[in-house]
Amino acid sequence: MALDVPALRVLRKRATLSFRHVVCSHKPGGAPPVFQSAALPVTLSKEDFKKLEPALRTELLAAQQKMIAGEAAALLIVIAGVDGAGKNEAIARLLEWLDVRHLACNAYDAPSEEERHRPELWRYWRDLPARGQTSIVVSSWYNAPLRDRVLGEIDETTFQTRLARINSFEQMLSNEGVLVLKFWFALRPEVQKERLAALTRKKKRARRILAEWTDIERSATAQAIFEEAAVTTSTPAAPWLVIPSEDTEARDLAFGRAIEIALSRRLARAQQASETRPPAVQRLTRRSAVEAIDLSKRLSKSDYREELEHWQAEFAHLTDKKAFRDLSLVAVFEGNDAAGKGGAIRRMVRPLDPRRYRVHRIGAPSDEEKARPYLWRFWRRLPRRGHTAVFDRSWYGRVLVERVEGFCSEADWLRAYNEINEFEAELGEADTLVVKFWLATSKEEQLARFKAREETPYKQFKITDEDWRNRLKWDDYAMAAGDMIDRTSTHYAPWELISAEDKRHARVQVLKRMCKRLKAAL
Amino acid sequence: MALDVPALRVLRKRATLSFRHVVCSHKPGGAPPVFQSAALPVTLSKEDFKKLEPALRTELLAAQQKMIAGEAAALLIVIAGVDGAGKNEAIARLLEWLDVRHLACNAYDAPSEEERHRPELWRYWRDLPARGQTSIVVSSWYNAPLRDRVLGEIDETTFQTRLARINSFEQMLSNEGVLVLKFWFALRPEVQKERLAALTRKKKRARRILAEWTDIERSATAQAIFEEAAVTTSTPAAPWLVIPSEDTEARDLAFGRAIEIALSRRLARAQQASETRPPAVQRLTRRSAVEAIDLSKRLSKSDYREELEHWQAEFAHLTDKKAFRDLSLVAVFEGNDAAGKGGAIRRMVRPLDPRRYRVHRIGAPSDEEKARPYLWRFWRRLPRRGHTAVFDRSWYGRVLVERVEGFCSEADWLRAYNEINEFEAELGEADTLVVKFWLATSKEEQLARFKAREETPYKQFKITDEDWRNRLKWDDYAMAAGDMIDRTSTHYAPWELISAEDKRHARVQVLKRMCKRLKAAL
Repeated sequence: MALDVPALRVLRKRATLSFRHVVCSHKPGGAPPVFQSAALPVTLSKEDFKKLEPALRTELLAAQQKMIAGEAAALLIVIAGVDGAGKNEAIARLLEWLDVRHLACNAYDAPSEEERHRPELWRYWRDLPARGQTSIVVSSWYNAPLRDRVLGEIDETTFQTRLARINSFEQMLSNEGVLVLKFWFALRPEVQKERLAALTRKKKRARRILAEWTDIERSATAQAIFEEAAVTTSTPAAPWLVIPSEDTEARDLAFGRAIEIALSRRLARAQQASETRPPAVQRLTRRSAVEAIDLSKRLSKSDYREELEHWQAEFAHLTDKKAFRDLSLVAVFEGNDAAGKGGAIRRMVRPLDPRRYRVHRIGAPSDEEKARPYLWRFWRRLPRRGHTAVFDRSWYGRVLVERVEGFCSEADWLRAYNEINEFEAELGEADTLVVKFWLATSKEEQLARFKAREETPYKQFKITDEDWRNRLKWDDYAMAAGDMIDRTSTHYAPWELISAEDKRHARVQVLKRMCKRLKAAL
Repeated sequence: MALDVPALRVLRKRATLSFRHVVCSHKPGGAPPVFQSAALPVTLSKEDFKKLEPALRTELLAAQQKMIAGEAAALLIVIAGVDGAGKNEAIARLLEWLDVRHLACNAYDAPSEEERHRPELWRYWRDLPARGQTSIVVSSWYNAPLRDRVLGEIDETTFQTRLARINSFEQMLSNEGVLVLKFWFALRPEVQKERLAALTRKKKRARRILAEWTDIERSATAQAIFEEAAVTTSTPAAPWLVIPSEDTEARDLAFGRAIEIALSRRLARAQQASETRPPAVQRLTRRSAVEAIDLSKRLSKSDYREELEHWQAEFAHLTDKKAFRDLSLVAVFEGNDAAGKGGAIRRMVRPLDPRRYRVHRIGAPSDEEKARPYLWRFWRRLPRRGHTAVFDRSWYGRVLVERVEGFCSEADWLRAYNEINEFEAELGEADTLVVKFWLATSKEEQLARFKAREETPYKQFKITDEDWRNRLKWDDYAMAAGDMIDRTSTHYAPWELISAEDKRHARVQVLKRMCKRLKAAL
């Protein structure tokens, strides 16, 4: 490696320094040093660049090829920075260096109607890279909060809440094997001013996108807000890296080298250790919430008919209301095997407009799903406003079957509780009502239903060896369900515990609780 | 099998009869018999139904399980018919009978903004079932044309054109292994009138969706239009089946049995033979279009800089126009290996707003893509209005690499020409400009580039053993490319043949032709 060039040493040092600065050495009250480093002049002659480029290119590509072959990590590069710093030029150069067959460049316009109908992060979830793939994100999830704060449309508390949400998102990505690198392309204000003036003069040549809040951006307020955001969101899982951008060659070389260093480092670790180990689940000494469900409730056939009809009519009435059009409804069904989820779902959706609901039965993930963060397969199924999505089994699989059967690591399912709560909080903020049902039967009733399934020809497909095997782990599943209900019953998305020992009682209860929750939300 | 019940014999006979009637025995000028059969009274007592149901259920489920296990076919059930016939009830019963884990019920509301920005069939393409899966479609692709024609918003010619498009779509589905069954739930007009009146009286109980053109629907005109559509679109690939719906039990049994019979029949054939064999490609005796490209064009470095800048500015200018926002742009790049597609694409997209274009590099399909009709992976990547999608390799893979390497059958690539032309015609009608580039080099130039790639460390990933193997089939690829250009150069989507012997010439040509085509379209 031809690294013995003073300019590159400076660059290497700078990249590492900025990283350390932001992540570790920011003192409360002191001026954030993020953008100060950009003021230091770094230059590289065209000749030096030409000497250094081939080695960087070769090493960068080697790291990318290793990632593609390993399929253990994905790379997500977030691009931000001041206008006039040459972000697009730097990206264009990166595209020349990398194998673009495994790369997507994702920039985002104002949200479309379908995007506005869902949580803010939905559009970014959709485009998350599969393992082995690289995604370059321009106008990322930072754009809206920064813009809203600079324009004074949100207050400091809201701004910090949104930044905290971003930190959770990036932490989750990192835990799920996505290497998140965030770059800030920086210019000294006086240089930026010069650049933008020059660009305006020759604007015919090629388009440059200026943010709608560009004028404000240069003000001291905006600068302070950016620095605040950078400090808050520079985490070990997803650090900000500052790229001094006055010199084109130095800028591109620093950009490429920073990616190469971070990617190589990440791939050198066989398995990324979770930086913050989630606390172990408190083992239950008391009766779990699941065991406490009163299974003695029964409903006679005639009462059932009457009540079912009544609550179906009520549900139809509620979903007919105009206010329902501004709401998304997500219904989750979990429970023991043979608890009667399918039958309860069929009766619940009966009053709904068929054009406005979908039932998603969650089985094994596809390869597109397996290659992305766990929650991706649920994000892609989120309903738009006025619509309902029913999940027959759901994201809770991670803390139920995956935990019990050892399909994921302990660290994975332990952190899933927080990730799920975070996910449902985001849904709640986007006017999505999340109603979660746990359908419980006794072990004896399950046995009776298993046997009935075996004896009826057209029900035999519903009972497999796996069901019998799962039954042997009844206590493990009960404990997992208890922990799940303890840790994911939030005020915005509480669990509805339903006795399903009697199917008629369960079906009516589901509709009744659904109506109650919906009425409160409308 | 307990089939010896008169009512069922009638039902079985009826289903077959209706099918034959519509498909085979309609005489031009005669009254279409589709809806006449609905007038025949078919009844089934509740007791007989209870006797017959278990056998049907078992056999239906067995057929579905065979389809799931085989993963060779998908089932698509289209639901249509008069209001009040009980379509939703019949679907609900079917959902009880089938294994719903492998089934989706898809109903469609008024198109969303994102749907309106794309061809009419886009929303249906998105939801096509994977092999092994069943999709029940309510408010299908028939809805909009029928509605528009009944309300007099389109004339007879347009109506017939849209029906012809539907026939192509369904023929394609059938060729791609999707069993398409279309059901018409019929009532005699006097019975329908009674039913609707009764429904209105107890409307609180459960919702019924009435089409906005319900009143008209009952008129003679509407009936005639439905019958006309049914006759035009009852093809061997996708027949209409009439379900007399006056008697609930008879209706559901006929519906279930018809599906069971059709599915069992389909699965009995190991491989569905293409009903209409496409004509063989005319072997070329003359020079192919590809061989006729003048490869002698060159561009000097200084001319290149100037022209590139000029055409990039022009492209930026054109895509800045307000009219561009009402247009989608699809750019397709095909060509020899090492023809310089990547470099040409990079220079072409440079003037575009990064938020409004995506580059799709087409490699191996994912398992979600492999399980669906061939064009599905391209439909899912179509851009909305004002946006651009660039395809680095494309749907033409089927008639190029798949043909030459034998990745698909001869019948598959032979019919692909028509399917592709149809696809691009639909794009054109949805205000999508399709610009297709073929980048050609000589065999000698390719060799020189292959060698250069091998010699430069950071270019080695671009050259593999496969490239060398493909090179041995140079003549086969040239013939495939020639046939492709002959058969898919349409007036709405002609091929742009580019000499890529000199990269600078090619890059400027791509931009120049793009601007020319775009200017003409705006």
